[in-house]
Amino acid sequence: MDEKLYYLTDKIDNDIKNDSLTEEEKNALCEEIKKLLPSGSIALAQINPVSGDVRGNALKALKWIDWANRLELAAVAFPEMYLVGYPIGDFIDRFPVIVEENIEWLKALALKTAETKVLIGFVEFNESKKGKKYYNSVAVLSNGRIEKIIRKTLLPNYAEFNDYRHFEPSAVDSSNRIVEIGSKRAGIIVCEDGWNDFDFFEKNLYSVDPVETVVNEEHPDYLINCSSSITRAKKEQLKHNMLSFAAKKYSTPIVYVNQVGSGECMSFEGASRVYDKNGNLLYMAKSYEEQFFIVNISEKTGKVYPLPKGLEKTLTEQKAFSLDHEPDLERTYLTIVQSIRDYFKKTGFKRAVLGLSGGLDSTVSAVLLADALGAENVFGLSMPSKITSAESKNDAKELAQNLGINFSEIPIKDMFDVTREKFDFTFGEIEKKWNCRYKESFTNDNIQARSRALILWGVANEFQACLPIATSDKSELYMGYATINGDMSGGFAPLADVSKTKLFALARWLNKNRHQKNAIPESIIAKRPGAELAINPKTGKPLLAEEALMPYEFLDEVIWRVENLQQTISDMMTEEFLYEKHMKEQNDPVSREQKFE
Amino acid sequence: MDEKLYYLTDKIDNDIKNDSLTEEEKNALCEEIKKLLPSGSIALAQINPVSGDVRGNALKALKWIDWANRLELAAVAFPEMYLVGYPIGDFIDRFPVIVEENIEWLKALALKTAETKVLIGFVEFNESKKGKKYYNSVAVLSNGRIEKIIRKTLLPNYAEFNDYRHFEPSAVDSSNRIVEIGSKRAGIIVCEDGWNDFDFFEKNLYSVDPVETVVNEEHPDYLINCSSSITRAKKEQLKHNMLSFAAKKYSTPIVYVNQVGSGECMSFEGASRVYDKNGNLLYMAKSYEEQFFIVNISEKTGKVYPLPKGLEKTLTEQKAFSLDHEPDLERTYLTIVQSIRDYFKKTGFKRAVLGLSGGLDSTVSAVLLADALGAENVFGLSMPSKITSAESKNDAKELAQNLGINFSEIPIKDMFDVTREKFDFTFGEIEKKWNCRYKESFTNDNIQARSRALILWGVANEFQACLPIATSDKSELYMGYATINGDMSGGFAPLADVSKTKLFALARWLNKNRHQKNAIPESIIAKRPGAELAINPKTGKPLLAEEALMPYEFLDEVIWRVENLQQTISDMMTEEFLYEKHMKEQNDPVSREQKFE
Repeated sequence: MDEKLYYLTDKIDNDIKNDSLTEEEKNALCEEIKKLLPSGSIALAQINPVSGDVRGNALKALKWIDWANRLELAAVAFPEMYLVGYPIGDFIDRFPVIVEENIEWLKALALKTAETKVLIGFVEFNESKKGKKYYNSVAVLSNGRIEKIIRKTLLPNYAEFNDYRHFEPSAVDSSNRIVEIGSKRAGIIVCEDGWNDFDFFEKNLYSVDPVETVVNEEHPDYLINCSSSITRAKKEQLKHNMLSFAAKKYSTPIVYVNQVGSGECMSFEGASRVYDKNGNLLYMAKSYEEQFFIVNISEKTGKVYPLPKGLEKTLTEQKAFSLDHEPDLERTYLTIVQSIRDYFKKTGFKRAVLGLSGGLDSTVSAVLLADALGAENVFGLSMPSKITSAESKNDAKELAQNLGINFSEIPIKDMFDVTREKFDFTFGEIEKKWNCRYKESFTNDNIQARSRALILWGVANEFQACLPIATSDKSELYMGYATINGDMSGGFAPLADVSKTKLFALARWLNKNRHQKNAIPESIIAKRPGAELAINPKTGKPLLAEEALMPYEFLDEVIWRVENLQQTISDMMTEEFLYEKHMKEQNDPVSREQKFE
Repeated sequence: MDEKLYYLTDKIDNDIKNDSLTEEEKNALCEEIKKLLPSGSIALAQINPVSGDVRGNALKALKWIDWANRLELAAVAFPEMYLVGYPIGDFIDRFPVIVEENIEWLKALALKTAETKVLIGFVEFNESKKGKKYYNSVAVLSNGRIEKIIRKTLLPNYAEFNDYRHFEPSAVDSSNRIVEIGSKRAGIIVCEDGWNDFDFFEKNLYSVDPVETVVNEEHPDYLINCSSSITRAKKEQLKHNMLSFAAKKYSTPIVYVNQVGSGECMSFEGASRVYDKNGNLLYMAKSYEEQFFIVNISEKTGKVYPLPKGLEKTLTEQKAFSLDHEPDLERTYLTIVQSIRDYFKKTGFKRAVLGLSGGLDSTVSAVLLADALGAENVFGLSMPSKITSAESKNDAKELAQNLGINFSEIPIKDMFDVTREKFDFTFGEIEKKWNCRYKESFTNDNIQARSRALILWGVANEFQACLPIATSDKSELYMGYATINGDMSGGFAPLADVSKTKLFALARWLNKNRHQKNAIPESIIAKRPGAELAINPKTGKPLLAEEALMPYEFLDEVIWRVENLQQTISDMMTEEFLYEKHMKEQNDPVSREQKFE
């Protein structure tokens, strides 16, 4: 469709967010847009719900429905379980009132509908004696009433998903899944219902494929999949291949509407889309933004907003480990920033306080927080101990200045000293009874990290709507190379799923691609990581993380193999690691020995 | 059966645990026992597995199988999923090697079987293209081979249970569920398979009842249910009623073998049993102990070990809130002690350190720890601040002396002062930028709890196999009336599911029923709870918890209504609470006002 349409619908997005248009302006905009719309056009409501805030979600939906009505669209489709928010977890078991509320609001929304069909995800009570308490359903609303209800068949119950805990699976019931939209018959699919093609997957979780059943039994003109489908490294290609495959296989266009936003430890990237009957991508909405996205399956070309860079990796490549994180960095950045922003907003927090050590973890955390919350809402505290180098202190300060976040330096030597003294006395007392004291201990090292967390939690207690940040990264969390009640402690952990090698790549990417170039001092990226909690007796310098652990390139491959290939130690012993290969290629046994030392 | 039998089989339990018998003694014991055994006798292996320790579980099972073989029993039945341990959670997804290992060990165990049938729970791979990766299965082993495999049909996926995440449900397949044991035909049921009677329950989670199917299609002489069924307040009566109901309804005896022990946040109480065809309880094994329990369904009378006191509440009574915790105290005590003991043992810890404030939470925690780990493995630290009363210090010391646990006093005034000073400076700095500082703050109060946790975690770092204990109770956790990185922080939280009113009752029960009477100083139980972190400006004395919150009798009913009736605030507003009723009954509006003040 005409590019101009999307310039105009951006104004709708803005109005939905800011109530920016008067009634007159709305009418004028409608007239202008309607001229560009072929009949049968539908809107994909790529929207960001708040889990549990049924009233808020419903009032928000109302604005979208109002615009769809004004434009006299054939339909507007919302994501799966939009009214209660997906995921909702055990809340609907503990507070069934949420479900009652979503039924009331569903009825209220129905009253606001006209000719335009509204497809909207909600939670339905299962009234029968047998089975689980709820269905995961999509309602079709029009002309002031609930026209029909479609129930999800396939209930994912792996990884982040626990649908089967709460919902009763429904038979496919093909004829009920058909909705007349304009002059076409659309078949409605609910998220996972579209993820079980027997030809596409090597192994299938379920014995039914609702897509196959609906297409073969009802021959719809196209399919609409109402989804809440999370983002994950390299999942985008899988999704694209799968949707394209099914559209082509059944020679049936597929409209896919996805949630956007983050909540309950999940992130949704939006990127709603349409595939034509040949499996070609015809439309794609924005990523990581709400969008009132108008599409038309009868068109030959549509608007394709670009995906964040690097989602083009093929499925096959998932199986190989790579230290080239480049392809996933933009997605990673956008996902974490969205997660921070939505977590704070949806839970009522506004400000973040974190320790700035001059190391990579706290540095990248600070950048992400500044971008998510606004620099003025971030407070970085440099809390040097006697081991902290002057360089680290300067790096922290420079970073804060570059980012424009608040900054202060609070030395903790006195806290350390008084605690250390306390420990000496306490441990002496205990040693009289327990003859099992460690000779070389990291106990004192931990005092520093725990004293810092004490200050951060104090700040969070003392200032309104403020959360302390846990800065540990994934590689160190895997190894336990982090301190309980220290850097592991906080209200949000932005790097908990970012490995160290990826973190380095992300830091360089941020310096190159953020609006503000080179905000991260090069010296922070250049230095080898260390917690600056202890001195290495061999070198007389602060102990480096890789001296305590192993090279990060090696560690991150171990983690990757555990997570992706479910390998055990003995599996790994027989395989060559990238790190080993690189060392071999260098053909320099001496340097290799040194690195491992 | 003869009482003497159980005196003799106690020796088997002892031999299994301690290898206490020589080959000669074993043979002599066997001869003696065999004289007492009617034909068709079977052993219920009420056993305590370690989740994930397949080799350990298998080697342990071997001892039980060996005894069953020696006694030439008709069968020995182990609990559900015994070989990998139940629950196993996502471990089998992340480390399928656990499942491979359990298949190897299953084959190895089969080689050790003779005429005696061995029924043993394990995890089976699902080799087909469709469905989840595993089955939750019971293998029947005999004469050196795997005779057959029975797969679980109903997969619980609510509350603590997540079976459906990992397992493919199986059709009931009645004929496959029949096993010839001696001269009888037994129908095998796997745990939840026995929990879906359409007449017994008002609402059913599943549309199939495997008990009904097996009985109607195969008419077995009796049923054996291999279970891993957790203990829960008042669940015992439900279990008893349900098993008795089914036995009577189908005029078919039911043998129920249950796991014992704790792990992965679940506790199993054992109490394996047999109901005759009239629904009468014929046998019941010990609770909270491993037992090689021999039963015979053809007997008229059997050994019934008593259940821990108070499990006799009826189902109906679950629906009313009561402040009479008495009926559940013995079960609560045994469950927590077993949970502490098994958690420490199964994760490799041995010692516990906790703060002793002289308050009820830390007091009851110390008693439970002493009973679970041995007094010599518990270290109580009194860590008074300037607010701590002399009485509290004395109470803590007296308690430690009574229990015989290690004790030391470490004043924290200096830690508090240095941190307080640090806070003043830090908050001043931040206030220049953020104009959102709280006027009246609990920030300083939290310093004390966090300084104490700093010491406890230091001790845990410094001494081998030592865990710090989080002492918060359920009522305070619900209210957030506890300190993050303070009393909420630890390696184990024994009271996390014990409400305050129950805690008072438990303290009195402990003083009356433990081997050591009145170990808890009466002054600790008599005083009203308070954290001694802050002074109440109105009274000039340390702020009491009920002054900051509400009366505990009231709070605990709120929690109960949320958990058991899923009530909302508006639901509760219209209902009369026990506390209100009591106040009314006192007919004394003045005292009521005072209590609420």
